[in-house]
This record gives sequence, C-alpha cells and structure tokens, in this order.
Amino acid sequence: MKTSDAILISSVPNIIYFTNYSGFSETEREAFILITTNKNYLITDSRYSEALKKHTSGFEIINSGAINFISNAKDFFHINKIYTLAIEEDNITLAESKLLKKSVKIVPTFFFQKRIIKTPQEIENIKKACKIGDMAFNFILAKLKTGITEKEISDELIGFFKLKNADLSFKPIVAFGPHSSIPHHENSDTKLKKDQIVLLDFGVKVNNYCSDMTRTVFFGEAPEEFKKIHKTVLNAQQKTIKNIKPNMKLSEIDKTARDYILSQNFPNIIHAVGHGVGIEVHEAPSVSPSSKDIVKNGMVFSIEPGIYVPGYGGVRIEDLVLIKNGNVELISHAKREIIEIHD
Amino acid sequence: MKTSDAILISSVPNIIYFTNYSGFSETEREAFILITTNKNYLITDSRYSEALKKHTSGFEIINSGAINFISNAKDFFHINKIYTLAIEEDNITLAESKLLKKSVKIVPTFFFQKRIIKTPQEIENIKKACKIGDMAFNFILAKLKTGITEKEISDELIGFFKLKNADLSFKPIVAFGPHSSIPHHENSDTKLKKDQIVLLDFGVKVNNYCSDMTRTVFFGEAPEEFKKIHKTVLNAQQKTIKNIKPNMKLSEIDKTARDYILSQNFPNIIHAVGHGVGIEVHEAPSVSPSSKDIVKNGMVFSIEPGIYVPGYGGVRIEDLVLIKNGNVELISHAKREIIEIHD
Repeated sequence: MKTSDAILISSVPNIIYFTNYSGFSETEREAFILITTNKNYLITDSRYSEALKKHTSGFEIINSGAINFISNAKDFFHINKIYTLAIEEDNITLAESKLLKKSVKIVPTFFFQKRIIKTPQEIENIKKACKIGDMAFNFILAKLKTGITEKEISDELIGFFKLKNADLSFKPIVAFGPHSSIPHHENSDTKLKKDQIVLLDFGVKVNNYCSDMTRTVFFGEAPEEFKKIHKTVLNAQQKTIKNIKPNMKLSEIDKTARDYILSQNFPNIIHAVGHGVGIEVHEAPSVSPSSKDIVKNGMVFSIEPGIYVPGYGGVRIEDLVLIKNGNVELISHAKREIIEIHD
Repeated sequence: MKTSDAILISSVPNIIYFTNYSGFSETEREAFILITTNKNYLITDSRYSEALKKHTSGFEIINSGAINFISNAKDFFHINKIYTLAIEEDNITLAESKLLKKSVKIVPTFFFQKRIIKTPQEIENIKKACKIGDMAFNFILAKLKTGITEKEISDELIGFFKLKNADLSFKPIVAFGPHSSIPHHENSDTKLKKDQIVLLDFGVKVNNYCSDMTRTVFFGEAPEEFKKIHKTVLNAQQKTIKNIKPNMKLSEIDKTARDYILSQNFPNIIHAVGHGVGIEVHEAPSVSPSSKDIVKNGMVFSIEPGIYVPGYGGVRIEDLVLIKNGNVELISHAKREIIEIHD
C-alpha cells in the first residue's frame, strides 16, 4: 500500500544510515534526504559539496540549503507530482511542518523502525566497536592508582580509543566512590582513594556504529556491602539475559531485571534496563516498562541493571546482546565478575 | 499582552541559558523547563537528580521524564489553570506538538530571540573564550612543521584548550593545501608540506559561552596568488566591520563583504558572512542575504568572508564583533595580516 509519493528523511542518524556520511551537524538542520519514485535527492548546501563527492553516491545533490528548500518547495513538489510526503514526525519541528504544509500534504512515516533490525554489515561494525570496548576495559584497569582523577581516567580512555582509530559513542563516564550513584555523573577532578567504587561506562564508534559497556570494580578489598550489591546486579543481568526469548515483549525483559532487584530488597532501577544500540548509542528498541516492541532476530540492545545508593555509591553492569537465529548472543566479553584492584 | 498561561522551554541552549546546567543530551529529549505564573519547573528524570541539586536552583524539579510528562499533562495543566502554552516551534517536534495538543492549546513563543542581546555577564564569558582562542593561535603556529598531520594539529589545539580548562565549541577544523577550499573539511592524516596553505578554524567554551575564530596562514613563502586572495578576504572583512552601524540590516552587512569579493573578480562566498555566537556557536542573528535582523547593542556575531578555489585552496578570516554603545568592538585579536611560517 502506497501511502505517500515521497519520503523526507531528516534525522541525522537516518541520513547516516542511507549515506554513510556522518559530517552533518546534530544540532542544526543542514540536510534532508528526499526519496521519490524515480530518484533520491540529498538536499544540503554547497559547504558540503566536496565532502559529499568523496563519501556518497546514488544521490542527486541539491545545494539550495535544507530549510530554504522546504520553504520554497511548492514548484518542486508540483513538477515531481509529489502530493503526499511522509516525514519523520519525531524529528521534523513544528515550524518545519508548517513550512511543508504550504506545499504538500504531510503524513507520518515509520521508516525509522527499519533501523531496529540490523543487517550483518551493521552487526559486524557493532561487534568491532564492542571488541575495542573490551580491550579498553583491560587497558584502563591498569591505570587505576591512588590519586588519579576521574578526568585523567577518562582522558586515558579517550587516548586509547584514538590509538584504535575509533570515535567516541559518548564521553566516558568515570565515577569514583559516592559519584557512582549518579547515573549521569560528570567527570571531576576528584582523586581516587583506597576503598572506593569505580564505575566505568564508555563506548566507541566503528564505521558510525556504537558500542556501550559499563563495569563497576572496587579499588581495594571489596567490603561485604559492595559484594552483595555487585552480586545482585550481576545476577539480575544474567537472569535477564538467560530469560530473553524470540517474540517476548521487551517490557518483560525490563521487568525481569527490575523485579529481581526489588525481590532482593534493593531500590527500583532508576532508568530503563536497556536500549537499542546502532548508529545512535541510544535508539529503538527501548527495554523499558512502557516498551511496545517484541524480541526479533537482528535486534541489538543493552541489558544494564543497576543499584544506586545515594551517598554510598552504585553498581551498574552493561553489555550488548544480539538476537540471532532465535538465540541471544552476548557481544561484549570483558570480565563481569567482581574485580578488586590493588594499588 | 499576555498570550499564554505558561511557556515550555525545550531547546537545550535555552535550558542552559536558564539553568547554567549543560549536562542534558543535545540529541535526546531529556528535559523541559515550564515557566508558569507562580513557579518554574524543571521536568526531567531521576538520573539527573543529584547533578541538578549541585548546579541549579529556583526550579521545582519534576522527575517524571520529559516525554512522559507531556504525554500525561492534562491534569497538571488543568490544576494549574494552563489553557494556552507557548512553545518553541522550531524545536518541538511535530510528534511532541500532537501530544501537547491533547491537553492544551499551543502557540509559538519567540522567546529564543531574547538570547540575541547578550548581558554583560554573557559578554564577559565570550571575551574570556576569545582570549583563549587568541592564545591558541599563537601556540599552534609554533607547531606547524613539515610532516605534521591535520589530526595532530587538531590534537595539539585540543590539548591546549584542556590545559586552559576550556571545552570545545566544535572540533577544530585544520585544512592543509587544497583541503582549505572545503569549508567543512574533516581533519585527515594528510601531512603538511612546504608551500601549502594552512586554514585553522576553532573555538572554545568558557562557562558555556563560545568563541569562534578562523585564520589562514602560509607554510613557506607565500606566492602572489595566495597573497592576493588573502588581501582580498582581509579587505572584505575590515571594510565590512568598519561599515557596521546601529540599526543597519544584517543582510546589508553580508552584502558589503559579498559585493567586495565579487568586485575583485573572485567567486561569491559560499556561506553566510557571519552568525551570532553565544551558548551556541551558531545562533541568531544570522549575517546572511536573507537575515531579517538589524544591528543592536549587545549583539555578538562573527564576520567571516572567504574565497574558495576548488583544487587550489581557500582563505577565510573570522573574528567576533560586539555591538556596544553604538560602536563595533572586535573581541578577537590574533594577527590577521599575512603570516608566513618557515620550517
């Protein structure tokens, strides 16, 4: 069933998906892709002409400027017999939708759903990124010394990724001691002291595809309290992964981890248990109580339960799983069991 | 005239403007600010609770999650007598606007215009950022040696900024030789050779406020062709700056530079002649042919004419100007005249 005469792709991750070109700004509207029956257009401005010639093929480039194009598209749509245009409703702004409505009827597209199921090539890239993440974890453990700061550990990770020619999925999160109870902690100049928790959350991109991994270790001899929290989180993660089955609701996966942690008398997880990973480090499907998705072959998502005790610290363990031929494959491998680091 | 009962602030730069907190994702919807007659709310989720306690005051924090809040806001709006809500039309997505419309009437706000006029405090921050930029330029000239790569020069700049405790406004652009004709060149492993153009475009953030500067130097003895292009760009920039007057249209500022370069038989500038700078490195007002703004005290914008000759190279010279008491103040000072670097 044809519901539109053309599709306008506007979100940067979807533009990367089609072009493999990742140079457009994430915060300014610099490009659109317009897919019509006969032709694919890439609408941008001449600043990108030379870069696009090098990176991308299969598109007719229109250099009018992205916003300028949709502001003056009436004739273009008319000539090309485009009466109904599918757009990304969760990306096009209200102001842009008003501009478009002057020239064409707009309808939602659910195109972005396509990225939920990864191709073998995409999986290959994510696996390569995860492998660099595994290596980075072993590398960084050796750097944990009394007096080193969170920022210094983050810089060491960034330096390691640069050596491996990998971009960052996001700025590494390094949290010492009580900071580990803040899921979005900003790395500080706090120095590492003996008997502190160290939470490390980082990821890299290979050919535009992300990895994402979290480990929580103890600097010193781990006390019983930490051991218990760590064991509970690891059990939650492993039980949850073991329980994943094709066609299961992702909300049930979330529930498995959440309920286990509650059953052990720890507080409810203050974030979703997981999220899809691909061109974006957080993308569909969501592994959360409100998720509507079901487990399918080709999905890649994180399973990352956590226990956070404000003022004391937190533990999170995060790995990516791939659904393949109805089975669950763990694609990050760094040691999950409790690790004690001695100075 | 009251046109709405409350204002919903959604763009991250505007959220930073109000809270001074810059930790929210630029690519995912993680927070809203809701300004009502009695109270200011910051709507986010509990991952941010501890960070916000440290950074921000004056807001009642709602931890329901941003999208979840607008999906279920009917009762909240009703209880608080909010019947008409002003939104950022150029930031709210069409999907979000549909969610909001289930609970409230939405109207556009032009709040973001407010950031066009900078406060003395904001100007202070931008000046500090520009000062670090000036220092970085002198620092980096000494690093230009035969065989160094674009990426290595970029890394040197990033290292310098880190020492100065400044974040990046954007990834430095370093373009050798013919790469300098690509305004959005991606730094490569290309090695610097004698007799090449070196274009450097970089900026830093101080207290969330950006600088932005471009210089183009010659590695070796500059040939006449380069000298002529460089002189034309510099003349275009200086004439344009001298010509800026209060209440002048910004489109006329753009025209001054554009026309001068055309009059010297060089190709038309392939980008806008300038842009506002503040929390965002590109923000209103635009200095472009289609700009509707006029020059006012408190504006800070770049003037950055360029000449680009594909296959040969390009020259761009960019500085920030501040409009103050009807005068134009240049707030970056690194040498603009032709510089020849000898190995």
